[in-house]
Order: sequence, then structure tokens, then C-alpha cells
Amino acid sequence: METVTRRRTVFDLFVIDADDTLWESALYFERAEEDFILLTRSLGFDSPSVRRLVHSRDIERLALTGYGARPYLGTLRAVLDELCPRRPSWADSAFAEISRALLEHPVILLPGARQSLEWLRERDLPMIVYTMGEQDHQLSKFSRSGLSDLVEECVVVERKTPEALADLLSSKGVEPSRSLVIGNSPRSDVNPALKVGASAILCSRERLWQAEKEDILDPGRVHHLETLSDLPSLLSFLEAAPDSASRDL
Amino acid sequence: METVTRRRTVFDLFVIDADDTLWESALYFERAEEDFILLTRSLGFDSPSVRRLVHSRDIERLALTGYGARPYLGTLRAVLDELCPRRPSWADSAFAEISRALLEHPVILLPGARQSLEWLRERDLPMIVYTMGEQDHQLSKFSRSGLSDLVEECVVVERKTPEALADLLSSKGVEPSRSLVIGNSPRSDVNPALKVGASAILCSRERLWQAEKEDILDPGRVHHLETLSDLPSLLSFLEAAPDSASRDL
Repeated sequence: METVTRRRTVFDLFVIDADDTLWESALYFERAEEDFILLTRSLGFDSPSVRRLVHSRDIERLALTGYGARPYLGTLRAVLDELCPRRPSWADSAFAEISRALLEHPVILLPGARQSLEWLRERDLPMIVYTMGEQDHQLSKFSRSGLSDLVEECVVVERKTPEALADLLSSKGVEPSRSLVIGNSPRSDVNPALKVGASAILCSRERLWQAEKEDILDPGRVHHLETLSDLPSLLSFLEAAPDSASRDL
Repeated sequence: METVTRRRTVFDLFVIDADDTLWESALYFERAEEDFILLTRSLGFDSPSVRRLVHSRDIERLALTGYGARPYLGTLRAVLDELCPRRPSWADSAFAEISRALLEHPVILLPGARQSLEWLRERDLPMIVYTMGEQDHQLSKFSRSGLSDLVEECVVVERKTPEALADLLSSKGVEPSRSLVIGNSPRSDVNPALKVGASAILCSRERLWQAEKEDILDPGRVHHLETLSDLPSLLSFLEAAPDSASRDL
């Protein structure tokens, strides 16, 4: 039996999701929706019906508009136009304020986010923040998070597909099997990783946008963490473990 | 028995509260608090303890700082300094963003708010918007509400006491017994009205800031409305009713 002698680094690249993995995000989409419901209630519309309409239009439009705050606000405005094409001007002012609140929401790091990135950085482990949506909006949040002193690169794609992930890994010259994807979404983080042959960690959150819910393709290959605070201890454990552990979490 | 011949106007002045009577307000204080709890959780503090600390400091500081968004943010900052005097810079950035979100929250009218003011205005019934807090912050919300085309005056006082209300009525030359105060707070709207001899309508809201909870002094003299949408029908009823009805709602 061959003996492995090189100093093992567990992975060659850590691909870390941003929204709801490093910082709060879905919370602010929920608030924009709540405010929209209050606004339409004030205009005389039944709240449960408006909510159902928003959710169905959101799913319909996703394929056309892509992900992100502005596309979502576009959906809300389309619903407003549909329900109430001739509305008082205060409703348009309120809608503009709801939009601004979502586009400029506070960037509040999740527990362990900064500490985990510091831990990776201290060990010189290559990492990329990888997120989907609109370039300027995502980069603004990355800059406001104060994490750009730890991670040099934040890659924004329109949609996180297996192909987009494969392209990213290939552009970095990294074997998928030597990379680890960390995120909160089964659909956008975990399943694409499994499809290209990368490892995956799911940082579950109670708050998950409906469109991100999906069964995990191969649950046995995915490790769950409550928060990113537990990442260093998991990685230390892997470093100490037999070689096989680095492949199948 | 004397016959009343003059055209009866039910009240000589309507004194209408703003925050949580005309538009959403407490919701945004709750959100600022929720974000503050998330921020301190990310800094490693236990959320239920932080919440208890915020509530007790808020009550302690009210007497010193007065009401309003900035005083409340001052309390949150004091708690942050107390818990975590040496903190990473991202926490200060996040705190600044939480502050901005509260100071510039969307102004979303409550159901019936605009329609009721239009109804009063069409009947030439004198009304004042009367609110407490900081002058510039309250006037900014009044202007953003789009209601200033209906109501000429928005009076801001530091604190809504019976004395402040008596001063307001006297400055307008209105007998307290001929005025009607409409608001959502037992402590700040209803009880001061009862104390000076005015009538009062409570527009109850589920969402009521803890410091505003207080027993109503004389419940028999206060009428409850679910929303301001019901105000016109109530006032029409009073106009049609015998004279005594205008005094004791």
C-alpha cells in the first residue's frame, strides 16, 4: 500500500456562498414583501390574495428576469400595476421607499462568518466568495460586509448552475473533486456542487426562499453545519482524518 | 326643553396622532431591534439577554432622552458600547446601516388614513396632526406621507402629556370638550385627552410599543375603531345622533 507523504491540504479551493451564508439576506426580501402587503392592504386589497399573486408571479418571472433584488422589485411593481394601475401618488412614493430599503439593506454578518474566513486565511487556504444576482448590488454588499480584506475575489454569476460552477473551477484550474462548496441553498449551492463532483457543506437556515428549496441529490455526500462557527473544527477534524475523509464529507 | 337650531359640527377640532395611527411606525423600531439582536448574536452575545438589556435600558433612558428614532438608536448604541466596547469595524458599519434604515423607513399609510382625512377635509372640519418625537424626523415622515396636501399643520411635541395637549388646544382657542383626539396609544393619546376633558377614539393596533401600554382611565368615554376606515361612518352617526352623543362617545 502506497504511503502519502505530501503535506495534505484538505481542499484546493473553498467556494463560499454570500447571501444567507455570510450575511443576512432573505430577511430583507421578506420585509420588502411585508411592506408591499401593507401598502396594498392600505389600497384596499386582500392580503392573502396579494401574497399568493406575488409568489406565483415571482416564480413565473424568475426564468425571465434572473435573481436579485431589482428583479424581485420588478415583480412587485408588476403586481402593483396589475392590481392598481391608477393609484394615488403616495403609493408610488411608498413603493420607491420599499425599493430603496431592500437595495440598501444593512449587511449583518452571520455568526462565525468572519471568524471562519479568518481561519481559512491564516492557513492560506484559497477561497472565493461566489454569489448570484446583479453584479453591482452583490459587489456593494460584499464591500459593505468588510470581508474584502480577507477574500480577494467575489464572483457574481447570473444563476448558480452546475455549468457556472464547472466554469469557475476550470478557470481557476481546480479539480472539482478537490473543491468544497459552502452555502445555505440546496438548489443553488449543494446540488450544483454534487453534480460537478465537488464536496458540499450545507449551512442550513430556517429562512429559505421558496425557489431555493429542492431535495439534496445525494444526502450522504453533504455535511450539515448549524453555523459557520463550526467550520474550523470540521476542517481541523478532516485534516487529521484518513485521506478518504477529505473526499466524502 | 330647548331646541338646538344651529348647524351642528360635532367637534371644533380633530387632533390626530401620526405614528401607527396614520402610518406604520413601530414595525420599523421592531426591525431595528431585530437587526441589532442579529448583529450582537454575530458578535457572540446571547439574544434573549441582549433583548432584555435593550428593553430595560430603553425604559431607563426614556426620561432622559425623550421619544423618537434617534433616542432609541442612542439606547442601542449604548448597549453595544456596554457589551462590546472594542468591536470589529464591520459591526460599526452594520450599526450605521441599521440606524439609516430606521431613520429613513418607508412611510406606508394605514388603511383608511388618507380617506378619513379627505372626508374631514371635504367637510371643512378643522384637524391637526399631532405627534411626539424629534421635529425634523417627524416632519420628514409627514411630508413623505403625502398627507400635507390635506392637513396644513403637523405639531410635534417632545412628549404627549395632558399639559402639552391642553396647551395645544388653548393655543387654537378650542374648548377641550369640543375636541376629539384620535390615536393608537392609551398612554400618549387617549389618557391625556380624557384628563383634559376631550373625547377620544382609540385605533387599536396589535403592534404597540411596550412603553405605550397603560390602562385607559375611563373606558366608558373612549370609542374603539379597528381602523381609520370606520371613522367617517362613526362621525356621520354622531352628526345624526342627539346632542349628547357628541360629548360622550
